[in-house]
Order: sequence, then C-alpha cells, then structure tokens
Amino acid sequence: MNYCSHCGHTVRFAIPDGDDRPRYLCDACGAIHYQNPRIIAGTLPVAGKQVLLCRRAIAPRLGYWTLPAGFMENGETVEQAALRETREEACAVVESPSLYTMISLTHINQVYMIFRGTLQGGYAAGPESLDVELFDEADIPWDALAFPTIERTLRHFFDDRRRDRFELHSSEIGEKERERYFGSA
Amino acid sequence: MNYCSHCGHTVRFAIPDGDDRPRYLCDACGAIHYQNPRIIAGTLPVAGKQVLLCRRAIAPRLGYWTLPAGFMENGETVEQAALRETREEACAVVESPSLYTMISLTHINQVYMIFRGTLQGGYAAGPESLDVELFDEADIPWDALAFPTIERTLRHFFDDRRRDRFELHSSEIGEKERERYFGSA
Ligand SMILES: [Zn+2]
Ligand SMILES: [Zn+2]
Repeated sequence: MNYCSHCGHTVRFAIPDGDDRPRYLCDACGAIHYQNPRIIAGTLPVAGKQVLLCRRAIAPRLGYWTLPAGFMENGETVEQAALRETREEACAVVESPSLYTMISLTHINQVYMIFRGTLQGGYAAGPESLDVELFDEADIPWDALAFPTIERTLRHFFDDRRRDRFELHSSEIGEKERERYFGSA
Repeated sequence: MNYCSHCGHTVRFAIPDGDDRPRYLCDACGAIHYQNPRIIAGTLPVAGKQVLLCRRAIAPRLGYWTLPAGFMENGETVEQAALRETREEACAVVESPSLYTMISLTHINQVYMIFRGTLQGGYAAGPESLDVELFDEADIPWDALAFPTIERTLRHFFDDRRRDRFELHSSEIGEKERERYFGSA
C-alpha cells in the first residue's frame, strides 16, 4: 500500500497512538488502513466411499488437484461462500455441510474453512477446473495436491472415517509446511 | 474506495473481465482491489456455572456488555486472535478453547468466531473495558448486551448446558436482527 484509498495522499507505515502494531496511516485525511486475514471457504464433497476433487485450470498450481474453495465475498455467509465455490468449480451441490477444518495460514494471512458434506447429484468441470473426479482413498493423488490445506483436510477425513468419528479440526500451517509445496520462494 | 492504494490513480467500480461482480479497478496500473469479510475472534470464558463478560469502555456500544472479542490481525491464527483479545480486554486466560459459534453478518461483512473455554485464574478490566465480571445465567444483563452475536452465543451456551451437549453453532445474523439492537440507522 502506497496511497490512501480514501483521499489519494501517500501513506506511511507506523504505529498509531494507542495501538500496538504498525498500520498504513494517512496524514492528510487521518484514515487508518487496517489489513486483515481473508477467508477461503470450500467443501469436501463426499459420495459413498469417495471424495470429489478438482484439477485446477488456473494459476497458482495449475494442473494440481484441490477441493472446491475460494475467497469468501462480501454479502455472503461462510457456508454460502463454500457452496458457491463448489457450484462454480465443480458444478456440484453439497448437502448438510458442516465446518470440518479451519486452518490459519499465518504467513500469508488466510484462513481456510472447509465444510464436509454429501455430494448431491452430478458434477462437472467449471471454468476454473480442468477435471472434476471422484476418488477412493487409495487413488488420492497425494503428490499432485495443490495446497497443504487440502492434504491436511483429506488426511483428517480418512483418519476420522476409520475411527468413525468426525469432529472439527482447527490448526495452523506455517511457512515450513508450505515450503514442501512451493519451495522457499 | 476512491483511489488506487498501489499507484494513487482514481479507481472505478465495475465488473472485471471474467468476473461476476463489481470490484474497484485501477485503469492506470491494472490493480483489482478485492474487498472481503473480516473475522472478529473472541472467547466465551466459563468459570464453573458462570461466564465472564466485559463492559465496553469504547464506542460502539459504550457501557454495554460483551464477550472479549475483536478483529483478527494478520500473522496470527483465529485461536491466537481470540486469546489475545481475551488477554487485552479482560486480562484473562482461557484454556482449551474450542470453536463454539461462527456467525456471518452479511450486511456488514463480518464473521464472528467465538471459542468456548475455561477461565484460568483471575481477570480485570483492560483499557477497552469498564468492568469485567462473572455472571450466573439468572443475572445475565440481556437488555444491556452490546451485540446480537453476543446474545446468540450466550443463549446457545445456556441451552447446550441444560441438555449437556455442546456443539459448533454456525448461523447468520441479518439486518433485521441487528436493527433490534441498533435501530435502522
Ligand atoms: Zn487519506
Ligand atoms: Zn493503480
């Protein structure tokens, strides 16, 4: 951030009075420009013993497999965002979604919220997907998953299914685990 | 948003190619300025039969009672944000926090994430609180709560406690329910 989005003046990065961390400040109009994490909402669509994955048609991680997920928009609930992304990327409907993994990515300021639910009816590749397919656990392309959040969600799912007990998993993915996927760049 | 925070040029509000909703666009540098909901993280500190509430020392809703909660910052997990706010507003520590209510406020683009946990040790009013007190269910100041998210979280808690079964509650609060608190302004 270089300029005040309100008045167009240059901003400086400093700790405001009474605050404890630096913000982008505008000395011209007095605006404080807070920056906050963004939510990525998605689903884990389950069909019998199988789960639905999408192969990405867009960067980043083009060609890699993911769960349908994307940035939550203003004006919708977290759940609505997850179902919208599922509709857009997999042309699919998920019933009875319940929050299943909440993963904070502290170094890139994202929070993943993935809802587990039952795939209802058909599916097809949306404009952001090359393929959409159902996978048995044995066939999951572990080495071709797009993001560590997806791997973690799938591992929780198959573990929980084995012990027949599903619960919300809340965790963090830091820089080290991301480097396994993306290198240190 | 009037000016591009990257290059300082004026922005326009229009649907980008390949998108389905309007964004703030900069024709000078090509930046698309997405706007997304923000997370408010907090806790429901439980001590035996009582819960901990804070009376707000700041606007909005100065003098009204709330749970310790505030905007999640970059660089922290949702849980860390909830515990930090509890420390700052109630000088209190909550053990074994687990996500308890997730409430989307679609008309103001906020998502509340309140963690239920056990109050550990003492408490005191932080700089943003006038008072911090423990309340029995019978003494909850229902007519002096700061936000509908707080009322909903407390009602879930006492209901769940009566049936001795706690679970994650995911819901939405729309404009109508907020008007009960704030009027239609
Ligand atoms: Zn300004
Ligand atoms: Zn620009």
